[in-house]
Amino acid sequence: MLAIRLIERKRDGGRIDPGEWRALLGAYIAGHVPDYQMAAFLMAVFFRGLDREETSALTDAMLRSGGTLDLHGIPAPRIDKHSTGGVGDKVSLVLAPLVASMGIVVPMMSGRGLGHTGGTLDKLDAIPGFRSDLSLAAARDQLERIGCALLGQSGEIAPVDRKLYALRDATATVEAIPLIAASIMSKKLAEGLTGLVLDVKRGSGSFLQTLERGLELADVMISLGAARGCPVVALITAMDRPLGRACGNALEMEEAIHALRGEGPADLMEVTYALAAEMLMLGGLANDRGDAKAKLELAIASGQAAEKFQEIIEAQGGNPAVVDDPALLPQAEAIELYRAPRRGLVAQIEPRAVGRGITALGGGRTRMEDSVDPAVGFVITAKPGDWVEAGEAVATVFARDEAGLRAGAAALREAICIADEAEPPLPLISHRVTELGAESYDTE
Amino acid sequence: MLAIRLIERKRDGGRIDPGEWRALLGAYIAGHVPDYQMAAFLMAVFFRGLDREETSALTDAMLRSGGTLDLHGIPAPRIDKHSTGGVGDKVSLVLAPLVASMGIVVPMMSGRGLGHTGGTLDKLDAIPGFRSDLSLAAARDQLERIGCALLGQSGEIAPVDRKLYALRDATATVEAIPLIAASIMSKKLAEGLTGLVLDVKRGSGSFLQTLERGLELADVMISLGAARGCPVVALITAMDRPLGRACGNALEMEEAIHALRGEGPADLMEVTYALAAEMLMLGGLANDRGDAKAKLELAIASGQAAEKFQEIIEAQGGNPAVVDDPALLPQAEAIELYRAPRRGLVAQIEPRAVGRGITALGGGRTRMEDSVDPAVGFVITAKPGDWVEAGEAVATVFARDEAGLRAGAAALREAICIADEAEPPLPLISHRVTELGAESYDTE
Repeated sequence: MLAIRLIERKRDGGRIDPGEWRALLGAYIAGHVPDYQMAAFLMAVFFRGLDREETSALTDAMLRSGGTLDLHGIPAPRIDKHSTGGVGDKVSLVLAPLVASMGIVVPMMSGRGLGHTGGTLDKLDAIPGFRSDLSLAAARDQLERIGCALLGQSGEIAPVDRKLYALRDATATVEAIPLIAASIMSKKLAEGLTGLVLDVKRGSGSFLQTLERGLELADVMISLGAARGCPVVALITAMDRPLGRACGNALEMEEAIHALRGEGPADLMEVTYALAAEMLMLGGLANDRGDAKAKLELAIASGQAAEKFQEIIEAQGGNPAVVDDPALLPQAEAIELYRAPRRGLVAQIEPRAVGRGITALGGGRTRMEDSVDPAVGFVITAKPGDWVEAGEAVATVFARDEAGLRAGAAALREAICIADEAEPPLPLISHRVTELGAESYDTE
Repeated sequence: MLAIRLIERKRDGGRIDPGEWRALLGAYIAGHVPDYQMAAFLMAVFFRGLDREETSALTDAMLRSGGTLDLHGIPAPRIDKHSTGGVGDKVSLVLAPLVASMGIVVPMMSGRGLGHTGGTLDKLDAIPGFRSDLSLAAARDQLERIGCALLGQSGEIAPVDRKLYALRDATATVEAIPLIAASIMSKKLAEGLTGLVLDVKRGSGSFLQTLERGLELADVMISLGAARGCPVVALITAMDRPLGRACGNALEMEEAIHALRGEGPADLMEVTYALAAEMLMLGGLANDRGDAKAKLELAIASGQAAEKFQEIIEAQGGNPAVVDDPALLPQAEAIELYRAPRRGLVAQIEPRAVGRGITALGGGRTRMEDSVDPAVGFVITAKPGDWVEAGEAVATVFARDEAGLRAGAAALREAICIADEAEPPLPLISHRVTELGAESYDTE
């Protein structure tokens, strides 16, 4: 009787009280509220929304549904980064070892790729032997010892979030900002963080395509953090083209390793440094962005960031030699250059088409249970706004076989648009959002 | 993959094609689309609505999901009546034998009560031995022989409607006009009707409380019928107070028997005659309302209507002697008058409070699997607008025991409001709606 009353009330635009959220989620995880009632409720939430208090109560109810990492005993700043996801986004792989090498504890919990977006766990799986399925106890121990763990969402943390997310995915109720915010924040708050940096993507390849929706999500998550003593800072970054050059699990891992050794592409480094700078400032390890950037560049140049990555890989059962020799990562059997079919300006590199191309090569998932081929993907060297000549190499396809090469080239023909004129791409980092509001981000 | 795309499209305000409706319902009844996806879809329909073409395609898909009565071989007019339901609404019990005795074939398919509203099947169950669970073959045979069958919705007819209705009931998606219209019309069209009369209730005790929503439902159902050669006429009638005096299964059956013998309360007779007149006019058995009313009164006065009811009861295994001796119906153990607590005008008799009172006495259901006590209920002799003195008997409570008498009196104290002034009640019959539109109904 409880569930039907709550569905009716939300359907008619009413509010759900904190006690009711706890009761609803408790009954759902216990199996007393069936999936079909929760599905109807979530669709009503999609249309009616949740106010701040409801979103907060939902987050609390989800957080309390399981165990937590409980890092409160660790004295160092405990700061995580979360991205809303995109194509070529390997920032976590660079940023986590980098800031961990500077004294910030980074309990980075990641997911797998689905649809056109990649997932950090899949990229980590490209390292021979690497295991991301740590228990909470093992993760806590590793965090205390070496300051960083790269782990998957354990069933122990916010279990109701896993159950709810699977249901939302099957019922077209994923794209509701309060549900997205509560899902992310319940997991992040379960990590016992002292700060959180959000990378909110916008543009055609992102989950929330418009700036307005991105700012709204940032705003909701900032309030949720503020109410729980966890300051949150968000940057709005571009996902109207892939980030960096490599798209595909092992290829992105290789690019991340190059970045940790000071050889990363400019756009990847700019986003990584910007997010890392916010983490250092939240942790009191840098005074301003200039100070942070100098320290970050030094941590890369000195080799300490790459060393920290080796430590993490070793602690999680992987082969740390990949950092010195990325050729130890899985390699594609068939490799071919992709050449510009005409001369002109690169007008667009459509991330969704690139993501679909990775899936066509066997490197992505359409369903959660699909397995992926780590070796396949693309390295796209051209960027929107570049001038190219007909026949000039603009990308490389990495595939299993000849058929894969053809599928990859077809995907790139769809993704890379060359024209006489081009609209300027979105600014790489456009806004910085804090409790005080959103301001434009000045890149120096 | 089909279902999620359809949920997304409906969520975003798009249309579902006829072939997609068939595929969706086919996959749902086969168990390939789970309840949780259908629940999310139905909630999206609640918010986005269906246009006329979609409602029509849904109705067809539901109709084709099972067997039909197929009465096409019967030459007589085949006309049914459907009411959106309320408290004290025993019109079907009077009207079906009445018009059947005049040559109209009435394949009346009814439901059980749920929540505050009663159900015709529960009222029929009060007759010792009566069986409403006829097979389609037995119903068809009885209709050919005696022109009327009073039956429950067989699993053979529109099975997807049963499954969908149970889901809607559990997910707060009942109150969506296109879903209501498709559900009713798919069953009615499965009867092979040549005409249908709708009794659309309005007011606090009705399902669609406002006139606007009632007119909208009538309009949708009239178009659905028109497109399939089944003319539909709707009357909008009042459900801001119970219809007639008796509320409770055996008590309502007794009142219906009195009505068939010419001793029914005025409001019950007025609604019954008005709906029956529409059936006679649709069937070509009366020229106008005046003509119809004279013929109906004669069918009651001559005893042919009561005799037809005896025939129906006998054919369906019940004891026909109840028509001559209603004392054969189940009788309550404890009976007590309810007296006006003060002098004044009867300002309101709230149907929902009366319905909840019947449930409190054990005569109603809160869940479909509950069993009901046929004997309990109320006879409320006062009507809104009546002047009553303090201590004057305005109703009688029929209960199992002393505790029931107290619960019944408490329900009546809540339901019957006596005040110094009173708003006039809704007109008993306010509108008549046909393909040509809605017009006010003039009661002579």
